[in-house]
Amino acid sequence: MLQPDVSRYLEAAREKHLAKLLELLRFPSIANVQGERDQCGPCAAWLAEYLSGLGLKAEVLAGEGKPTVIAALDVSSDAPTLLIYGHYDVQPPDPLELWDSAPFDPVVRDGCIFARGASDNKGQLFAHMMAIDACLQTSSLPVNLKLLIEGEEEIGSPHLEGFMAAHVDRLAADAAVISDSSFFAEGIPSITYALRGLVYVELTVTGPSCDVHSGQYGGLVRNPANALAAMVASMHDADGRVTVEGFYDDVVAVTDDERRMWRSLPFEEEQLAASLGVEALAGGEDGCAALVRRWARPTLDCNGIVGGYTQAGSKTIIPARASAKISMRLVANQDPEKVAEAFKRFVAARTPPGVRSEVAVSAKARPVVLSTDSPAMRAAKAAMAEAFGAEVALVRSGASVPVTELIQRLLGLDAVLMGFGLPDDGMHGPNERLKLDQLWRGSVASAALMHNLGQQAVPDEQVRA
Amino acid sequence: MLQPDVSRYLEAAREKHLAKLLELLRFPSIANVQGERDQCGPCAAWLAEYLSGLGLKAEVLAGEGKPTVIAALDVSSDAPTLLIYGHYDVQPPDPLELWDSAPFDPVVRDGCIFARGASDNKGQLFAHMMAIDACLQTSSLPVNLKLLIEGEEEIGSPHLEGFMAAHVDRLAADAAVISDSSFFAEGIPSITYALRGLVYVELTVTGPSCDVHSGQYGGLVRNPANALAAMVASMHDADGRVTVEGFYDDVVAVTDDERRMWRSLPFEEEQLAASLGVEALAGGEDGCAALVRRWARPTLDCNGIVGGYTQAGSKTIIPARASAKISMRLVANQDPEKVAEAFKRFVAARTPPGVRSEVAVSAKARPVVLSTDSPAMRAAKAAMAEAFGAEVALVRSGASVPVTELIQRLLGLDAVLMGFGLPDDGMHGPNERLKLDQLWRGSVASAALMHNLGQQAVPDEQVRA
Repeated sequence: MLQPDVSRYLEAAREKHLAKLLELLRFPSIANVQGERDQCGPCAAWLAEYLSGLGLKAEVLAGEGKPTVIAALDVSSDAPTLLIYGHYDVQPPDPLELWDSAPFDPVVRDGCIFARGASDNKGQLFAHMMAIDACLQTSSLPVNLKLLIEGEEEIGSPHLEGFMAAHVDRLAADAAVISDSSFFAEGIPSITYALRGLVYVELTVTGPSCDVHSGQYGGLVRNPANALAAMVASMHDADGRVTVEGFYDDVVAVTDDERRMWRSLPFEEEQLAASLGVEALAGGEDGCAALVRRWARPTLDCNGIVGGYTQAGSKTIIPARASAKISMRLVANQDPEKVAEAFKRFVAARTPPGVRSEVAVSAKARPVVLSTDSPAMRAAKAAMAEAFGAEVALVRSGASVPVTELIQRLLGLDAVLMGFGLPDDGMHGPNERLKLDQLWRGSVASAALMHNLGQQAVPDEQVRA
Repeated sequence: MLQPDVSRYLEAAREKHLAKLLELLRFPSIANVQGERDQCGPCAAWLAEYLSGLGLKAEVLAGEGKPTVIAALDVSSDAPTLLIYGHYDVQPPDPLELWDSAPFDPVVRDGCIFARGASDNKGQLFAHMMAIDACLQTSSLPVNLKLLIEGEEEIGSPHLEGFMAAHVDRLAADAAVISDSSFFAEGIPSITYALRGLVYVELTVTGPSCDVHSGQYGGLVRNPANALAAMVASMHDADGRVTVEGFYDDVVAVTDDERRMWRSLPFEEEQLAASLGVEALAGGEDGCAALVRRWARPTLDCNGIVGGYTQAGSKTIIPARASAKISMRLVANQDPEKVAEAFKRFVAARTPPGVRSEVAVSAKARPVVLSTDSPAMRAAKAAMAEAFGAEVALVRSGASVPVTELIQRLLGLDAVLMGFGLPDDGMHGPNERLKLDQLWRGSVASAALMHNLGQQAVPDEQVRA
């Protein structure tokens, strides 16, 4: 159980903490953006300054890509060390016209903070900072702390592996926590024990050296937009299975225990479809239940497609080029390198005469499955149950958090994925939000986790089977 | 033969005429553009003023869509009346970065005028105005004149039928000429006796009510971009044939005479492919020669496609919507109404569950085949042979000029398609140009056509079999 003075402090400090979080949310720290509009540097500097203000030794490390913030505080060589990961970069906010308020001008409305990054990931990260502040202000920090805050998560953390490999000693810890995920549903605090991996590619098809008249050349010239459509279409068969050769070879099947556990979760396909504004969910591969498809089956999705004339009205051309951004979500034990190579071979084999194709791989992340029974996991389950007053569910996630696998592989730790978001937070979409109650309770959960780790004695009750 | 003083006048007036044409080319008169940037009105006003200055009765008629310029001049009730059609609207100039000089800041370089509209259609139209000026200045205009200059040809002439139906009497003529086409090759003056028709549609596929996270929802939500790609891909079979049900039902086969005539034309597939920057032409439907595919077979092309995240870098979303602009080029006797309906049925039948689709038809033009042996055709053949000093080829075109069919249907005339462009003029693409020599000789051809029509006695020599 958390010390009462920490709880009291967190409750009293809400207004102060909220004001600082809103400051953090004002940075349009989009990792994609280069040049003058790049606000990643200022955002990283803000974080280092704030953490220094709390009493940590914090610094911004520049390198390839966007800067990384690291911070540390030692309380005792006897205490365990907790590594907290977060990311300050956010998804691009477009399409802007769908936002009810400006994405980087955060507003509090209906008990929620609305801003790009509110849930993913500045708000969730900030819950830990609130806990750190509370423990320090009440002189009750029970663990040594390390923070790793990166600025390229939303583009697949392309430089994180190199960074972590170069700083293994500075990042070494006894436990790690990542809060970059969501509850299964409101009222069901959830710990995520598996993440999908990712391969993100851009496929470009080029034809004539410039756009040509569709009347003069229609029927003569292979149309790159039609060719791209055919190539993208050929990536799935009629049953929704990905046709890239070898794609499913290494996929580990879901266990019966997992199927049982997932069936116990409240999940209504019709309700999800309605909330998304669609008549029905995609059938996907035959015979796979929806949660199995989300959590334990790989996918291939077109994230963007563009070519030719795309403004209002008509223009009668055969475009010179067309391109598609494609993400493949991977599950254990698929290897991103292998999948990326298979995708390239697939494209090369299906490029028709008269056009050329090119595949650029922009991100790769390995899928990960974590231990569900480590001491850190037990500490986290108890902390979440205490903070949110409900049984904790063990779930997977369809998303990718590249650092998780890196912590496992480079630091030898299974991180705990203890997220404070809710499924309808609108991560990556317009009107992203974080419910204030999730923020307040998230900070309690973080403090309780530190407390439980410090105690090394964790009750095993209140955990959903 | 043309009167020598008309030729001399045209030669002497070149600089003056060129300066006026450059003025005309400065208007960014794009029919797509609305609001303040719409320069169709000023361009139409310029034309009416210029034609009035030549001595014609000219006016700008406003109505639905962009304004239309009409002009007339009667010389004698005994003289035949020639209707000259042109269009002052131009294709959008993008992608701007591929132009060597600004599209609406015309420059003369290497014996060519470079500007959007230089060939399609302001330059070709202006050749007739130069001839009118020459005939009037030398007091030798042998025909009554009517001009019809529209501002929406590049968007499929959506209001032209209504306009012409309302002005049948004002447009009535004994012969009609349209110069909005190209030579088969440089040195081969060509008269076009058939045009493809057009159906232009926009197909929009919508899924979730906003972009959603591709990790959280990949595998659960039907992806509109993938669905669109699959729908577009399904519009062709493996042999390149269009799969829209009934698409080929009304297609008239090419005659043996036509095949013979076309085989006599200098056409090298490899050379065309090289000039377009592609390794090979599209195979198209099996067994169709390239010129047959261009001129006498219908096509389906994606002119533009867009959906989801299309800026630099990556964004991991399932897009809420994706859309494609699709043009179908039709040949005699396909009916655009019937094809548009068949396309809509095709799309409705192939929209998978979980997404919605919508088809908006933005343009329709009927294919047309014209008489190759009318008095006007004979007059035109002789005029072209005289002006360009070479045998005239009778060709078809893969493009659409909607007015041709309207002149046939509403005015009861087979127009003569006597174009002055060259195949590498870059119509609809970047760096559009018109060779000055084609302009000078085009104006001679126009004056000779008027002369021949006035004479009603046309030599039948010098016509390619």
